[in-house]
Amino acid sequence: MRYAVLGTGTAGLTIAARLDGLGHSVVVGTRNPQDTPARTEPDAIGNPPFAQWQAARSQVGLATFAEAAAFGEVVVNATAGPVSLVALEAAGAENLAGKILLDISDPIDPRQGPVLNPGNTDSLGEQIQRAFPDLKVVKALNTMNCRVMVDPARVPGPHNVFVCGDDADAKKRVTELLWSFGWPAGSVLDLGGIVSARYTEMPAPMWLRLLGDIGHPDFNFHIQVA
Amino acid sequence: MRYAVLGTGTAGLTIAARLDGLGHSVVVGTRNPQDTPARTEPDAIGNPPFAQWQAARSQVGLATFAEAAAFGEVVVNATAGPVSLVALEAAGAENLAGKILLDISDPIDPRQGPVLNPGNTDSLGEQIQRAFPDLKVVKALNTMNCRVMVDPARVPGPHNVFVCGDDADAKKRVTELLWSFGWPAGSVLDLGGIVSARYTEMPAPMWLRLLGDIGHPDFNFHIQVA
Repeated sequence: MRYAVLGTGTAGLTIAARLDGLGHSVVVGTRNPQDTPARTEPDAIGNPPFAQWQAARSQVGLATFAEAAAFGEVVVNATAGPVSLVALEAAGAENLAGKILLDISDPIDPRQGPVLNPGNTDSLGEQIQRAFPDLKVVKALNTMNCRVMVDPARVPGPHNVFVCGDDADAKKRVTELLWSFGWPAGSVLDLGGIVSARYTEMPAPMWLRLLGDIGHPDFNFHIQVA
Repeated sequence: MRYAVLGTGTAGLTIAARLDGLGHSVVVGTRNPQDTPARTEPDAIGNPPFAQWQAARSQVGLATFAEAAAFGEVVVNATAGPVSLVALEAAGAENLAGKILLDISDPIDPRQGPVLNPGNTDSLGEQIQRAFPDLKVVKALNTMNCRVMVDPARVPGPHNVFVCGDDADAKKRVTELLWSFGWPAGSVLDLGGIVSARYTEMPAPMWLRLLGDIGHPDFNFHIQVA
């Protein structure tokens, strides 16, 4: 399967590496593909520069948002929530039409807090779906650290990944992708339409608070049911 | 210990019954104590009328918000979130000063959704603390059904109750109360000051969505940690 991963932050590169490791064809999309490999310093949270990451994965492409979106059969939005709509505009509605968008973003700035009013009457997932009606938006994986997204066994015991979206077939395809990442079938909770993104985008600030208390990102939400 | 429980809804009566069962002295506060026992019909969700509830607990008092608050050494806010500030005004700052308020409310109307912008820059817990600076507000138990609040073993396996508040001694006292309800020590997560109420008030809409999917209220959030 051909995947476009939009965003060269930690989440984007972690997802891209996992998809590559599973044998998929992957192109990472970014605003300025010339600039990204030129960086030689680790990023703000200590990740190695892109060039070093890609040296071990020369088969993974790097391209503009538009080129990556045109390449992918499935597109992953791993850009920062506050700029996701701008990045998807750059990707281009014509390159996205009819495709599945796995949206793992949260409308939050880790330094400034939520940029929407999560849980109230809207969500970034719904905003993306409205802006790109021909895109099959599936919100998933946005409630945990990216290392847990692609390797849920990092957190032993039961925990959940929430999936929502308006297109049943797109949700099924994303669910199968989650299974391939190692998510047990029972751990995937389908919350219905993309309207439920307003629920799954809400825990992000709480997650950040818990990160401070727990001291590492290997934790996740679980719905314990009697 | 003398407890005031403000609110005669399901949550208030469930908490009051549990406190009574543990041997505490309990007075339930309501707007019009004359009206409450006069009701002869079950409420909108099928709970028996108050008189029937109280017949089995004649030692539990019923009084105005102000009388109940004056009686209690600890006050429990079990009124509906959208009217909590009005109810506490009726209870009276002079009757609340210096006391612990265990605030189990959520700023949500089950039919209309959130009445604040939870998680953004404020919370009902903080609003109550600002309105009553001499009250020691401890937010807890607001992320689950009331039957689980007072009997966590209804949900087998590990799950969490979040506690936050600005007064360390008040949090300690509430934590001890939670232990007496059956919460294991490790299940109580202290999230810091009352500012964290904005985090624990956020899951309420998600909880309501999960209730619809799961079909019964015996579930709870758990933070699974590696």
